[in-house]
Amino acid sequence: MNIEMIEAAAARIGNRARVTPLLSSPFIDKLAGRRVWVKAECLQHTGSFKIRGGWSAVSALAADVRSRGVFAFSSGNHAQGVALAAQAHGIPSVILMPSDAPRLKIDNTRALGAEVVLYDRANDDRDGIGKRLAEDRGLTLIRPFDDEQVIAGQGTVGLEIARQAEAEGINAATVLVCCGGGGLTSGIALALEAHAPGLHVRPCEPKGFDDVTRSLASGKIERNASLSGSLCDAIITPQPGNLTFPILQRLCGPGIVITDEEALRAMAVAYARLKIVVEPGGAAALAAALFHGDELEGDDIIAVATGGNVDTDIFARALETYGTGD
Amino acid sequence: MNIEMIEAAAARIGNRARVTPLLSSPFIDKLAGRRVWVKAECLQHTGSFKIRGGWSAVSALAADVRSRGVFAFSSGNHAQGVALAAQAHGIPSVILMPSDAPRLKIDNTRALGAEVVLYDRANDDRDGIGKRLAEDRGLTLIRPFDDEQVIAGQGTVGLEIARQAEAEGINAATVLVCCGGGGLTSGIALALEAHAPGLHVRPCEPKGFDDVTRSLASGKIERNASLSGSLCDAIITPQPGNLTFPILQRLCGPGIVITDEEALRAMAVAYARLKIVVEPGGAAALAAALFHGDELEGDDIIAVATGGNVDTDIFARALETYGTGD
Repeated sequence: MNIEMIEAAAARIGNRARVTPLLSSPFIDKLAGRRVWVKAECLQHTGSFKIRGGWSAVSALAADVRSRGVFAFSSGNHAQGVALAAQAHGIPSVILMPSDAPRLKIDNTRALGAEVVLYDRANDDRDGIGKRLAEDRGLTLIRPFDDEQVIAGQGTVGLEIARQAEAEGINAATVLVCCGGGGLTSGIALALEAHAPGLHVRPCEPKGFDDVTRSLASGKIERNASLSGSLCDAIITPQPGNLTFPILQRLCGPGIVITDEEALRAMAVAYARLKIVVEPGGAAALAAALFHGDELEGDDIIAVATGGNVDTDIFARALETYGTGD
Repeated sequence: MNIEMIEAAAARIGNRARVTPLLSSPFIDKLAGRRVWVKAECLQHTGSFKIRGGWSAVSALAADVRSRGVFAFSSGNHAQGVALAAQAHGIPSVILMPSDAPRLKIDNTRALGAEVVLYDRANDDRDGIGKRLAEDRGLTLIRPFDDEQVIAGQGTVGLEIARQAEAEGINAATVLVCCGGGGLTSGIALALEAHAPGLHVRPCEPKGFDDVTRSLASGKIERNASLSGSLCDAIITPQPGNLTFPILQRLCGPGIVITDEEALRAMAVAYARLKIVVEPGGAAALAAALFHGDELEGDDIIAVATGGNVDTDIFARALETYGTGD
């Protein structure tokens, strides 16, 4: 896993991912007590950065393997990223989703051309279904984070941050990244190591699901006790990946742990001051910038707003509870 | 008024305005039955395109005139644009607002460094107060649209659209612009005439406040019967400007008239599919793209989402009423 793979992913992706803007607001700077820049990946195609990794992985497959199609396990952003990448490559995709996944996510994934296969969380053997898809139909599994080409694709966010920070005259900054399995976090860190070594990455996680933060502290992979119970569904994973953890250990940390309420308040701030829609898990980094200033150093913070695929009742709750977030 | 003035404005503005992205979504394309691109000026500094005209006008003043300061009449987006431009130039600004303006807008304008002077709509002589500010303090009035340097600044949106359309391979398209006094609409039209002559501008207005649409149809300046009663407050003006109307007449039209309910539904679509926050007046162009397809021609539509400064109760109403807008 190296910077050349990220640059090759960027070349393959070309203009199929958007260069998302680096936003800022004097109101946010005042609230945070620092200059805060928000890398708005919620404005990415499919509403999250996941199209980058999906495109990178699909486009890296050998043509004869790719043509048979791909599959993924996901009820969320990875599902839409893989579905769109497959559709644009003209190949089939199958997304395995739990049967209790929100209707809207199922519909959206289907609308992007994927075949959605529902399984019963309690009774079905998810991995067994996946294995049969691979054996019977020759589909290739696209993992959500522990895959070199996926990490390379997510790392293209880091290439953009390096260029945009330079254009803004930022040579030193803390880059806060909403972190699940660490694919995006490790990819950004690798890109910045090569192109903006003054920018240091710190993962941000929800309380109770801080496996990466604890793993970085203890020096070995730690698991979360539970896999449900946070609004930040997009970044809930059992543990850091086997590929991502060594990169996180070498380049990132320490982690910052935020609460669901801080995530909701950060969503209200992003709505009011940046005019963007961010989901709870995508607001963890901005929440850390706004409400964990005592854990931060330096004058400039770049917070990655990783996604905007939020259910409207939760978004409305953030606005009703926190207004403009001040 | 010519393209050189727009290009000079762009040079003066430099990176003090954001290059806002051109967003799209397959869901929106399906809903509209065409390819739709949204120029997201709601992501601009101060939440609307108005910083462009404000910056252009302030920076165009002779240094000794500018140093005495500027003033504007506005309770909305123009207020914040002028305030921020003045603050960044290190000069005083006074914004005259009706005393019944929303508290949040008063606070936001003050937070951008402006002195806010409140007047009573019913009893005070607004123009008299302005005249005294000019005479006593030497402040220069920055008009909201009928000013060559303001038009030139707003026209920089058109320069960006021309470049971004070319990058997307769009040679012919209808450009829908939310239209109040016509400063933005005429500026964009002048920029496209010079740099993307295949792109044709059509103004979009709310029902009952369609002065530009009627003026273009009749060939002479028509007034609105009323100046209140639409959610689209950002684009309610008495009549087209004396400078803007001849440009609109030469280059733009016919106008498209949308309802408040269509604007709210377009806001819900922009929220769900583009992850941006748009105010009712800023959603008029997208509403025209989505719900007035029978009045449109061609395969590609570029809709300018002009601003995002919406009161949260109205934004929540759009989401509650229309969900994802489908």
